[in-house]
Amino acid sequence: MAAPRPLSGFPELLPEQRVVEQHVLDVLRHTFELYGFAGLETRAVEPLSVLLRKGEIDKEVYAVRRLHAEPVEGEAADDTLALHYDLTVPFARYVLENAGRLQFPFRRYQIQKVWRGERPQEGRYREFLQADIDVVDRDGLAQHHDVEMARVMLDALSRLPLPGVRLQVNNRKLIEGFYRGLGIDDVAGVMRVVDKLDKVGAEEVSRQLRDDVGLDERQAAACLALPSASGPDVAFADRVRALGVEHPLLEEGLTELLAVLEGCADLRSERVEVVADLSVARGLDYYTGTVYETRLTGHEHLGSICSGGRYDALASDGTTTYPGVGISFGVTRTLAPLLQRGLLSSSRSVPTCVVVAVVDEERRAASDAVAAALRARGVPTEVSPTAAKFGKQIRYADRRGVPFVWFPQDDGSHQVKDIRSGEQAEADPASWQPPAADLRPSVDTAG
Amino acid sequence: MAAPRPLSGFPELLPEQRVVEQHVLDVLRHTFELYGFAGLETRAVEPLSVLLRKGEIDKEVYAVRRLHAEPVEGEAADDTLALHYDLTVPFARYVLENAGRLQFPFRRYQIQKVWRGERPQEGRYREFLQADIDVVDRDGLAQHHDVEMARVMLDALSRLPLPGVRLQVNNRKLIEGFYRGLGIDDVAGVMRVVDKLDKVGAEEVSRQLRDDVGLDERQAAACLALPSASGPDVAFADRVRALGVEHPLLEEGLTELLAVLEGCADLRSERVEVVADLSVARGLDYYTGTVYETRLTGHEHLGSICSGGRYDALASDGTTTYPGVGISFGVTRTLAPLLQRGLLSSSRSVPTCVVVAVVDEERRAASDAVAAALRARGVPTEVSPTAAKFGKQIRYADRRGVPFVWFPQDDGSHQVKDIRSGEQAEADPASWQPPAADLRPSVDTAG
Repeated sequence: MAAPRPLSGFPELLPEQRVVEQHVLDVLRHTFELYGFAGLETRAVEPLSVLLRKGEIDKEVYAVRRLHAEPVEGEAADDTLALHYDLTVPFARYVLENAGRLQFPFRRYQIQKVWRGERPQEGRYREFLQADIDVVDRDGLAQHHDVEMARVMLDALSRLPLPGVRLQVNNRKLIEGFYRGLGIDDVAGVMRVVDKLDKVGAEEVSRQLRDDVGLDERQAAACLALPSASGPDVAFADRVRALGVEHPLLEEGLTELLAVLEGCADLRSERVEVVADLSVARGLDYYTGTVYETRLTGHEHLGSICSGGRYDALASDGTTTYPGVGISFGVTRTLAPLLQRGLLSSSRSVPTCVVVAVVDEERRAASDAVAAALRARGVPTEVSPTAAKFGKQIRYADRRGVPFVWFPQDDGSHQVKDIRSGEQAEADPASWQPPAADLRPSVDTAG
Repeated sequence: MAAPRPLSGFPELLPEQRVVEQHVLDVLRHTFELYGFAGLETRAVEPLSVLLRKGEIDKEVYAVRRLHAEPVEGEAADDTLALHYDLTVPFARYVLENAGRLQFPFRRYQIQKVWRGERPQEGRYREFLQADIDVVDRDGLAQHHDVEMARVMLDALSRLPLPGVRLQVNNRKLIEGFYRGLGIDDVAGVMRVVDKLDKVGAEEVSRQLRDDVGLDERQAAACLALPSASGPDVAFADRVRALGVEHPLLEEGLTELLAVLEGCADLRSERVEVVADLSVARGLDYYTGTVYETRLTGHEHLGSICSGGRYDALASDGTTTYPGVGISFGVTRTLAPLLQRGLLSSSRSVPTCVVVAVVDEERRAASDAVAAALRARGVPTEVSPTAAKFGKQIRYADRRGVPFVWFPQDDGSHQVKDIRSGEQAEADPASWQPPAADLRPSVDTAG
């Protein structure tokens, strides 16, 4: 075949970039497991009926079909399969399917690819990795989990080689209560229009609220005033109340949002901001309370890199409901642009710490033995693929960023060379250990 | 929605089963990295034209299409996408696409799901995990890599909680040379028929070789005699030569197969068998030399759990060819049946090592502080979701297999209980450490 070209929207990484991604995935997993989340994977496909039940994203779904599909016994036509577009909907389905075999409250993390047929652009891909944490319970889910999800994800993000983050929290009950307190019935319609504030500006939003949704002057003005009550501390609640709107749902939302803000107060640092952002609504319509978004400092144009919220009714079999709260980190969405700009890099493109040189092909076994001894103590080691001149074997290591080259000597002794410094010393394959910092590739941030 | 049912062929694991799978994946990755293989992932989809170029598997491919696809600029109709059915073909495409940015020889491991629209049955799934290692070089690839791939995979398999394995090695040049030495031209036709030996028996194979492929009595008898020359040591070569067939390609194949067998001799153990199996041909037609299959002792009905071989011409852009050799372990294919029969299990369903009890909701912060202290030293810890009676909080831990429950005392001291033995002792959250064996879930084999 002719040299193939990349598929737009389906990013692939070079080995040295994958080292960075793998490091990030390891940190996420380590952090989630420290908090007791069980690792889980669901299948890549769901029946279309499951995927389309929630959210207005039918245009984004990829349907999947056997190339030469014949009618298969027991497979009805409405069982069309499609690739999942997020990890929350499949998780809700998994919980319902396995409810009898799970322990509730059930905490899981899930790191998998998802697919959306969006028009590709920076920060928007057709195939991308998400890392989700969720907790679901049966019938009712304690409110303190809304705080916990934010804390766990902030802990994970702060361990990553990323710029600072700003967690923006809001509450759907607060918004809905506020609108209802104003006498508005078309809550969803108002949300949709106010959501465009950043894009079209206040004047146009006000016009649409009056002309398209049918609000009066006072209602439209109040809807526009709500986002400006946002702020980094609990004082936001006073600013909301000062708007003079009253509704029980508004109070409930305020209490819940205050709890999240207070519960995360001690996590604030130079790199972590937590704010009540009353303009955050989240597109997917399964959220019922707390909603989260997250911006990466200096990369706000990427949009929210980490989003989620509480969904009290997503998983229900008609008899029992399994309310949940979760948050999802867009791994690809965050890393791909940073990798592309060289803002994240790794010290080498391979796990290899040592390349053992080969004197000549007849003595390859001696080099294999050195490698085996080093591997037995956990040192990632390759044997040179050729018995070329030592200069060429050193270049083999150097091009991959491998720090050490090992030379078996004719007299049975051994030399190991740090090819960065040129320093060379005698070494014993049965005991030599590299400096801890050199054992694995390191990840570096620039800029 | 009503409680959903499983999709046949798309296996999903319960949390305690996923612990086993994750352990297996960790061991594979650790082993592959010890040998210097770079971790890599490719996108899940390939253009149909790439997938159908090799192998006779068009009926198994899942095509992928946006549900409401509109003609998109720059997307030709022949760019239909499909899910990859293995990891070798996408890897070959990746190598061609990125050849200018990779260092050769290039060694990578790849652990990903693949999809095939096969009729589901035990050991055959529609979505399943594969773990591949391959090395590719430019123009030519040294023969010692054929030995290396077998050694690395045997090392990995022997670290897994599995019964013994038998690696069966053959060589396509040996088979082809043997047939050509007999004066046979339709090599592929003969291979296809001989491949049915296990299923239809010698008499029927002999009949088909004569009636369908057109061999004479002597040729058919020799083709049937070749597999019986198989054996666990280098004596197989004498038995092949005793059949009296001569051809340069046969000699080449014999030399290569001898090298693999001798190169793996020291790995033989109670749990590892390595044999020259002259009946192994492998279905996919891109193999050109060494071919590998692997049987799991006591589970031979699963077929080959680990297969691969050398492909000298799979990746070529017309100017440059990138020969490779690799081997692929069927993770799902191997684990799913063992998990289903309870032959593999984990000590707990969560990573959690300690559950910190909550005295009452007002004192949840004290329990949170204990958990933070334990996590800071790497101990996976949960705080009890409710301040229920201690008996109920202990049951929360017990049902998940969590070994320890921690009780903050009113006087500021702390007690930790091993709920398996009932033993309870005073402990300091700033220094207490669980026994190393309890820190992570363990994986147990039964039977």
